[in-house]
Formats: sequence, C-alpha cells, structure tokens
Amino acid sequence: MEITGGFWHARRETNARVSIPQGPALLESAGNLHNLRLAAGAAEGEFRGAYPFVDTDVYKWLEAAAWQLGQGADPSLAAEVGRIVSLVAGAQQDDGYLNTWFQLVKGGERYQDLRWGHELYCAGHLIQAAVAHHRTTGSEELLTVARKFADHIDTVFGSPGSGRPVDGIDGHPEVETALVELYRETGERRYLDLAGYFVDRHGHGLLGHEAYCQDRVPLREATDVEGHAVRQLYLLAAAADLATETGETELRSAAERLWHAMTAAKTHLTGGLGAHHDWEDFGDPYELPNERAYCETCAAIASVQWSWRMALLTGSARYSDLVERTLYNGFLAGVSLDGERWLYVNPLQVRDGHTDPGGDQSARRTRWFRCACCPPNVMRLLASLDHYLASGDADGLQIHQYTEGTYTHGPFTVRAETDYPWQGTIALTVEAAPDDRPWTLSLRIPQWCREFRVRVGERTYDRADAPVEDGWLRLARVWRPGDRLVLELALEPRLTAADPRVDAVRGCVAIERGPLVYCLEGADHPGGGLDDIVLDPTRPLAVRHRPDLLGGVTTVIAAGVRRPLPDPGWWPYRAAADTAPAAPGGPVAPGSPTTPGGAVELTAAHGDPVELTAVPYPVWANREDGAMRVWLPVS
Amino acid sequence: MEITGGFWHARRETNARVSIPQGPALLESAGNLHNLRLAAGAAEGEFRGAYPFVDTDVYKWLEAAAWQLGQGADPSLAAEVGRIVSLVAGAQQDDGYLNTWFQLVKGGERYQDLRWGHELYCAGHLIQAAVAHHRTTGSEELLTVARKFADHIDTVFGSPGSGRPVDGIDGHPEVETALVELYRETGERRYLDLAGYFVDRHGHGLLGHEAYCQDRVPLREATDVEGHAVRQLYLLAAAADLATETGETELRSAAERLWHAMTAAKTHLTGGLGAHHDWEDFGDPYELPNERAYCETCAAIASVQWSWRMALLTGSARYSDLVERTLYNGFLAGVSLDGERWLYVNPLQVRDGHTDPGGDQSARRTRWFRCACCPPNVMRLLASLDHYLASGDADGLQIHQYTEGTYTHGPFTVRAETDYPWQGTIALTVEAAPDDRPWTLSLRIPQWCREFRVRVGERTYDRADAPVEDGWLRLARVWRPGDRLVLELALEPRLTAADPRVDAVRGCVAIERGPLVYCLEGADHPGGGLDDIVLDPTRPLAVRHRPDLLGGVTTVIAAGVRRPLPDPGWWPYRAAADTAPAAPGGPVAPGSPTTPGGAVELTAAHGDPVELTAVPYPVWANREDGAMRVWLPVS
Repeated sequence: MEITGGFWHARRETNARVSIPQGPALLESAGNLHNLRLAAGAAEGEFRGAYPFVDTDVYKWLEAAAWQLGQGADPSLAAEVGRIVSLVAGAQQDDGYLNTWFQLVKGGERYQDLRWGHELYCAGHLIQAAVAHHRTTGSEELLTVARKFADHIDTVFGSPGSGRPVDGIDGHPEVETALVELYRETGERRYLDLAGYFVDRHGHGLLGHEAYCQDRVPLREATDVEGHAVRQLYLLAAAADLATETGETELRSAAERLWHAMTAAKTHLTGGLGAHHDWEDFGDPYELPNERAYCETCAAIASVQWSWRMALLTGSARYSDLVERTLYNGFLAGVSLDGERWLYVNPLQVRDGHTDPGGDQSARRTRWFRCACCPPNVMRLLASLDHYLASGDADGLQIHQYTEGTYTHGPFTVRAETDYPWQGTIALTVEAAPDDRPWTLSLRIPQWCREFRVRVGERTYDRADAPVEDGWLRLARVWRPGDRLVLELALEPRLTAADPRVDAVRGCVAIERGPLVYCLEGADHPGGGLDDIVLDPTRPLAVRHRPDLLGGVTTVIAAGVRRPLPDPGWWPYRAAADTAPAAPGGPVAPGSPTTPGGAVELTAAHGDPVELTAVPYPVWANREDGAMRVWLPVS
Repeated sequence: MEITGGFWHARRETNARVSIPQGPALLESAGNLHNLRLAAGAAEGEFRGAYPFVDTDVYKWLEAAAWQLGQGADPSLAAEVGRIVSLVAGAQQDDGYLNTWFQLVKGGERYQDLRWGHELYCAGHLIQAAVAHHRTTGSEELLTVARKFADHIDTVFGSPGSGRPVDGIDGHPEVETALVELYRETGERRYLDLAGYFVDRHGHGLLGHEAYCQDRVPLREATDVEGHAVRQLYLLAAAADLATETGETELRSAAERLWHAMTAAKTHLTGGLGAHHDWEDFGDPYELPNERAYCETCAAIASVQWSWRMALLTGSARYSDLVERTLYNGFLAGVSLDGERWLYVNPLQVRDGHTDPGGDQSARRTRWFRCACCPPNVMRLLASLDHYLASGDADGLQIHQYTEGTYTHGPFTVRAETDYPWQGTIALTVEAAPDDRPWTLSLRIPQWCREFRVRVGERTYDRADAPVEDGWLRLARVWRPGDRLVLELALEPRLTAADPRVDAVRGCVAIERGPLVYCLEGADHPGGGLDDIVLDPTRPLAVRHRPDLLGGVTTVIAAGVRRPLPDPGWWPYRAAADTAPAAPGGPVAPGSPTTPGGAVELTAAHGDPVELTAVPYPVWANREDGAMRVWLPVS
C-alpha cells in the first residue's frame, strides 16, 4: 500500500528526511564503516566498537534506506546506498564469510563462539538488507553478497550426519527469518530448509540449554516466552514464517500458544516487552514493572514482525490489534519527534527526582548508542511500515491498520482518507475492483473499540447489526470503483485497569484513547511533581486537540488532586490503620463502588484539585527531562 | 557482651558448628586457597576464580573464625586458622603487597585499575581479619601481614604534593573502615589519616565521577545515597568512624543526612537495600520493587555496620532500630536454617510459577557463589554479633538489642533472660555495679513498639509515666547487684502500610510482629498459589507458636480470601469500569473506611476464605522452592 498523509506519513517523512540521511555519518563516526574498509584492506587502524555485531547497524541502515528508495527516487540516498553496498561487498571474504569483528579481531575463530559471536545474526541482517535492496531497486549487487554468505553458511551448518562440519545455532536468532525471506526472493528451497534446521535445533543444548539464547527447550514444547526478549521474538517470527511456508501445524500451534502466553501476562500496556534490565529478559508472568520496564525498542519491532506474520498465518485480527498498540506506543516512543534522538529502553514511569545514569539504558533520549541496534531498526520499520497495514487474497482486501493512503491487492484498490488516530472517521473509496463480482472488504474493528458505525451508501450499521467475527467486519458485495464507505470508530478516552496479578499497577488506571496510551509528563504539570498526583476516576475525561503541542496532538484532560504526602520521618512504613484517616465530607454514601475481586475502586480522591493533561506516550520525552507516568493512582 | 541463649544463640551455634567449619573446604574447592599457594610459589597451576577480589573470601572467613575463637577455645578451628594465616603470610610480597589476582594474572599492573581492581578493598578485609585475629587470640602473625600491607599502601597513596606516587581511591570502599580499626588496634595515627585521605578523595573524579564507585560527588556534599549499595554503605561506615575519631561535625552531618535519606525512601521493609539488579544500585527514592528487590545480603551487613557506628556516634536509638530490623530480616534471610545455603539477593516476592535462572542472583538458596562475598560476610557478622548489642559509658549501660545473655561495660553487668523476639518479656538482673552511686540503665524502646511496661521492684511504668527520649528509656538510680527489672514489650502482630510513593506496594499491607517481618510461603498454602490471595484486614490477626515448624517459630494467622481471577483472554488490561462489579451483599454501609490521601482501605475482601499462615521472613526458603510474598493485597 501507499501511505500518503496523516499520522504515520509525518513520522515517515521525518524518517526519510532526517533519520535515514543522518545514518551514514553516524555509522562513520561510530566506526562501523571504518571496520568494513579495514576488512577490505582499504584502510588502516583498529577495529572500532564494543560488540561483535556492529556490522548489523550498517545492514539495518541499508535495509531502511532500501525500503526508502522503494518509496520514490532519491538520487543522493541511492548514491549513499551504492557506496555502502560497495563497502560491504569489499569486506566479504572469498568463501562468502563476512563479519568484521571476527575478520579483524578474532581471525581464525569462526563459528567457535556461537553463543556470543553473532555471526549468523549478522548474516541475517545482511540478507534482510539485500532482499530489500533487490526488491526495491532490482540491483543484484547486495543480493549476490548475501547469497554468497548464505551459501557458505549452508556448507558449514547442518545436523549430525548431514556431512556439514558444524551442528550449531546462533545465540541471537535473526538468520532464520532472513533465510525464509531469501527463499521467497530467490525461490531457492535450501534457504528455507536451512531456516528450518536452525529453528529446529534451538532447545537441544547446543548453547548449554540457556533460556537467554532460546536454547532451554525446543520451541514446539515451550509453554511460555522466556529469556532475552528480542531473541525470543525473532525466533518466533521465524516459526510463523516456517509454519506459513510449510503448513506445519505443530509449529503454528506453538507460535499461537506462545503469543497468547506473552500477551496475556508479559506485555506492558504499551505493547512493550521485556521486564528485566539484566539479561534483557522477559521475566515472570505478570511481572510488569513501570520504572524498570525494559521494553527495548528492538523488542517492540520484533513483536510487530512476529505478530504480523501471525496475522498472515492465521487471519485472526488480534495479532494486528497488538501490532497497532505496539506501533503507536512501545515502538514509536523509541524515536524523538525530530528523528534525531532515541530510546533503547521504554519505561512506563520516570519518578520525580529520577537520577539518570546515562548510557544505552537511560530513560533520557540519546543521540546514538554504544550498542546502536535500535535506531536503524526503527528506521527500517518506519521505511517499511506500509508492509504491515493490509493484506489481500483472491476474495478481497483486509485492512489491518487505518491510515491516509491507498490499499491495493491484486485487482482491489481502496483509497482511505482519515485523520486517525486523532479522529475515528475513516472514509474509504473503492478505486479499482474486478468487474461485476462480489468481493470482501474486511475492516479490523480494533480490540479497544467499544462502538463503531459504518455507512455504506445510505445504510448505517453498528455493532448490533454488523457482526464482527474474530475482530473483522467483513463486508461482501459487488464493490465498484467510486463506492464509498465511512467507518466511524468511537474514540472516547477511557480509563484502563490491569489484571490484579499485575502487582506493579495495583490501584492505578491508565488513560487511553483509540490505539494510543497516554501519560502524564512533568512539563505539563508545573508547580509540583507527578508522584503526589491521584487521578479522580469519578470525573469525566475531556479531549483537547493541541495543534501547538508536540507536533500536534490530542490531549486528554482528567481531574486529579495533589494529595498531601505524609512526612515519612526516617521510616516510610506505618501501621496500616494509621494511614486511613476519616474522609473529609463524612462517610461514604450508600451505593458507592466497592472493591471486590481485585477491582479498581472508582471513588473521588481528596487533596488540592489539579487539572491533568495527558499526552500520547509515543511523544513523551520530547521536551525537558522530567517525570512521566503511564499508570496513575486512583486512591 | 555474651550471648548465652535464645534466638541469636541458636543461629550463632549453627554458624559455629556448620558454616564456619565448612569454610576452608569451600574455599579450597573454589580455588581461593590454591591461589594463595600459587602466589607463595608453593603450588603450580592457574589462578582460579572469576574476580580480582577472591582473596577477600578467605579474609572474611578468617575474620569470622577469629571472632569465633574469641567465644571460646576450639583447637580444630584454631588449627585451621593457623594454617590459612600461614598461607596468607606466604603469599605476601616482600614489599607488603598482597593480591593473588594481580600477582598471578596481572603481574606488574598494580594500582593501575583502581576502578575494578579491588586491591585496597582486599587490603581492607585482610586488615579486618588481622584486627579480629589479634584481638581474640593475641597473635601478631596476621596483624604483621596486615600492617606490612597497610604500611606499603601508605607509601604509595597520597594527595598531590604528598610525595606519594598515586593519588587514588579504590572503586570499592572497605579499606577505610579497616584502617580506622587498625588505628584503634595499634594506636598508629597515620592509619587514621590514611583512612581520612581515602574518604576525602571520593567524589573528585579520580574514578571518572561515577556514582557506582562513589565518586560522583564528595560525601560531605551528597544529598542522597546512590550507586552500588554495598560500596556506598562501607564508605559511610568509614565516615561515621572518622567523625567519631576526629569529632568533625561536617562529616557527621553528612552521615546523618544520608542515613535519613536512605531510610526514608530507599529501604525495603526488611531493612534490605539496593533496588536494582544491574549495577547493584540504590535506584530512585521510593523505587522499592518486591520481586526484583536486590537487597544484597552484604548490603544488609554493611547497613548494620554503618548504623551501629551511627548509634555510637550520635547516641540516637533510631540507628539501632534499623540494626534490629535489618539483623532479623534482610540480613538473617541470607543464610539457611541449616547454615549451609545462602541467598545473595533477598527479594520480597517470588511469584507463582517463578522461573529461576539460577546463578548468584537466584531467588533460590545456593550452596556457594561464583562471587562468594556474602557467605563469609554472614559468618563474620554472626560471629561478632555480640559487638552490636550494647554500649556503655561512664554513666552506665545502654542495651540496644535484647537477647539472652550478659551485658557488660566496665563496672556494669546486667544479665538478661528472654525469649525475644518470640516473647516480649525481658527480665534483667544487675550482676555487678559500682558501689553506692547512681548510674543509668538505658533500654531501647523499639520504634515498632506501641506499648510497653517496665517493672522495677514493686513499681510498674508504662509509656505514660516512663518517658522515652529519642528512643531510649533511661532508668537512673543506684542499681545494685541483684536488682531486677522486667521490660514487657507488647508484641501484638500488626499490619503495616507504606508511604503512597512506594508504588510497588500500593493497596498492600505487610504483617509484622515485633522486629520480625512476616511473609506467606507457598508451602503453607497448598491448593493454590499466592498470587490470588487477598488479605482481609478487617479480621483480627492471631499468633500461633509452632515449635515443629522451621526450627520453632511463631506464626501469624490472618484471614484472607482467594479471589476469583479474571480470565485474561489474550489481553490482561480492561476498561476500569468493567473491573468493579457490584459487591456481593449490596452497597457499602455508611461509615465504611474510605481511602483518602494514599491510605490503605481496610474493607473486607470477597472470595473463598482461606486461613493465611505467615512465617518470619528470615526463615523463608527453607522448605521446597515456591512462591513467597511479604506485601499482601487488601483489595
């Protein structure tokens, strides 16, 4: 499809005008390009960078730039891509191997440290870049490099008895999805088989049965997501790909089961994934901290990639529900509005008086990282975002995400006009259709959406008479060019509470509107911090569009109070009975809500009234450094 | 003083009979003793161990064993100490330097990596061991080694202009307190001066101004504790020592200020310290997670050491309030009841279905650690626990902690009989006193204690007529041998709530009784997990002593319910209004408690009734691996 305006178009423009063009200079100053020249024998000096996977920063940038070239001619970008593709090609060894860390620092130790070496991970990103480059430009140059490396890997890795010297997997999955893509791009079945081999060999102790490396248990036997979040997600994306290509039901079932386990108990409200800073780990079910949420930007990206594959594999809309939530929140918060600064981790809370240690895992936006995996990953997803919004089959078109633009599949073309997510109205016009045969226009009714109306011609349907099946409103008729349909999704702001097992947010609510999670920022609440604020859930929420604020956002206004905080003295714990003074205004009236079964009590709070201005989470941390909260206490 | 029976006596017996005697074999198998033999040229092989500070495991064990020898003759332990002291002496270099890692692995790189090298940290523990050895055995052998190393350090380190070649500090404080102790043991003023130099040079960028290394800001200017918890606490213990020895008020004020900041906002209910697993960091104020509490056992020990010094420096009882809480909870949980297994981190929650990654930071008890700092640290504190319980001056005796035993200072001797903390009655008998002059017997009335009575002869006082000043009940009279006093501390179990800024425990209470924090364990609640349990705070708590359980503990019985948990489907977040169904039994009666200002609502919960059995936190994790919770939801 083509995105032509609106919310995502603006962010993609910044990606195209600022983020991607700045990439080569950043890769130069961080040493990544220097390493390629060194490996090619075209420069002198030492390997630069702290990790064996620094080449992937280049590959992910190349992939982003390649997708961007597919959006339209850009001679200067094309020249940069050409220059860097040549650097990559020059660094490749004669047998196809390519990894500057091993070539320059660990000469002769290929494939001996698969747990940490990232050699296949790097190959994967190279392949992804090459597929994008070939698909959008037709150039064979990078694809030739990638195939040569893939062919080399195919001579090295294989099961015992295969005659290949190494039975092994990479500590960081990525090559698996890449090989499936390479199969799709080239038609070479052995790339698919190699992807299948790598997926299958996880969980058999080749890497010491470590959960971190996705080696504790075979994927088909796993009951929960675990270990390093990005690794787990890339592996599961490959499982979905393989199930799609091979039709294997056991792998599909495993992927469905693990997706459910993840979303039901290990996903932050923002779609962010990964509860632990150390080992970038998923953590336990319902362990979803706020200030120490890890929620790596790359994990959000990997989640989008996996969920999209699940949507294509299963046809179920829930996967695109998660894609939407993740794109708008956990993913997009990773890049600043100006396209120049990044977040590696995406917490749901920054306390008043937060002392930031700096570094990659800072809660403050950073120009670039020592481990710069996230920025070019954001670039490539934004540049290829149009891949994730719609699908099609012989029977018609399925619109998964709403944006201003043109959705096309085969003979079906539908034009959308919308200011979503600020407005809930999406006007669709059929622009091309097969002659005189019925086909189905399927519209995802988002999981967050309580009420909607759809007008087709003179008829209006709502939820009562427009059945939604598995998340889809399927409209089958003889759609003809010029036919119009208007979908109106009710966008009232809402208060959201969590399962009582999510201990971190007990007694709190979050503000949401449409697909957007909202947060409070210190900048909008002068005269105090955020940690003494209590939201009053008995008062209505209001919506205020602010074209002046943060590039133009719709804010949600809520009523709150600044509660009087106790003087803790030297000890902040007290007898529980001491903390419940009589309420101002006397006893609670009969009929007040009560709090059985883990429910959130929606009663008025007491203190100094304060108007709360909530801004969308994806635009937080674009003003001065300050406090932020997604989850707000109500008592 | 001498501890002769009761709670601590039993744990110290296990320390003496099991933990300390097993030390040499564990140090042998981990390679620590091998390294000393290697450095002495008395063995062949490679350095063993993962850290440059492995020698300290030996030194801390020696210190523990030395204090133990002070409790009474033990020929076999004395022989082991003599053997290992000889190994240490043999490894020392001619100029006094001693660090097996640098001698064996990093030859010639002394004092070049002060940030991570731990050379002075190791020297500090050697000195502490030597002081203990000298004090309890009179032997000069280890003290000579320590002095030789200290003298060497004194020739190397000094301010610019001092003529010493290195102006530097160690990344891990410890040598500072040790040098003060060495000064006290030997009377050599230059050891005190050297300690002062090291304390003063923190915060001036010698280690890149890193908070982790206590180098961000000079101690006298600091407003909050920060960075690596153990490092911060050892440095502050040294500050208290220096303020005691020099009378410097600025350093004393800084120590008082930082202690207040720490206890008011960065201390877990158990006395545990350190909120972050990564970098073992204090974290932000009020950031006190449960399942990811770090609360390193060594940090609890360091906290006891610092607070005890503050108690001696200031005379204020609050410091011993924290010592008591920490000893009974955050510290003692670090060792199993059998004295053979350890916890490095001390979480306040283990979820149902917790997946433990193993390793040093496991929530499961471990026989020994790669970084084995905690076990011998526990051993030395238990073996020297009698140092932390009482103080004295010309005017009398101050009893800080209650235990069965004999408190002595100068002419004052008081014998205590008590089953504290299971019972609140402490019977004190004066056994020795100066002739015919009034002196003051000061009793700490614990901060947790609401009511007490004290009987002296035929008179009984309570809080109304026995004024407590700054935590002390001071009883001045002509105490004579044979005089008796009975203190009764009311030990009703209680529910405790936290400052509303402690987000992690919103809507929760903890059960406490006396100095003990209680927790639920899965083992006492068959037929379900812990994460669906809600405590009913409207029902009374009961006490049940269980001689059969966990070595004999008093349990607290509470009423709770198992709440029906929602089926989360694939998404655990819901519209807040959806989560508040009408309460069974109709609307809330007028006069029900309400929840203004962050208070905890004490209303009945709904679900299947369940009797909750809470056990003392220090004995958790002594049965099968399972779930545990200190903080219990009430709604």
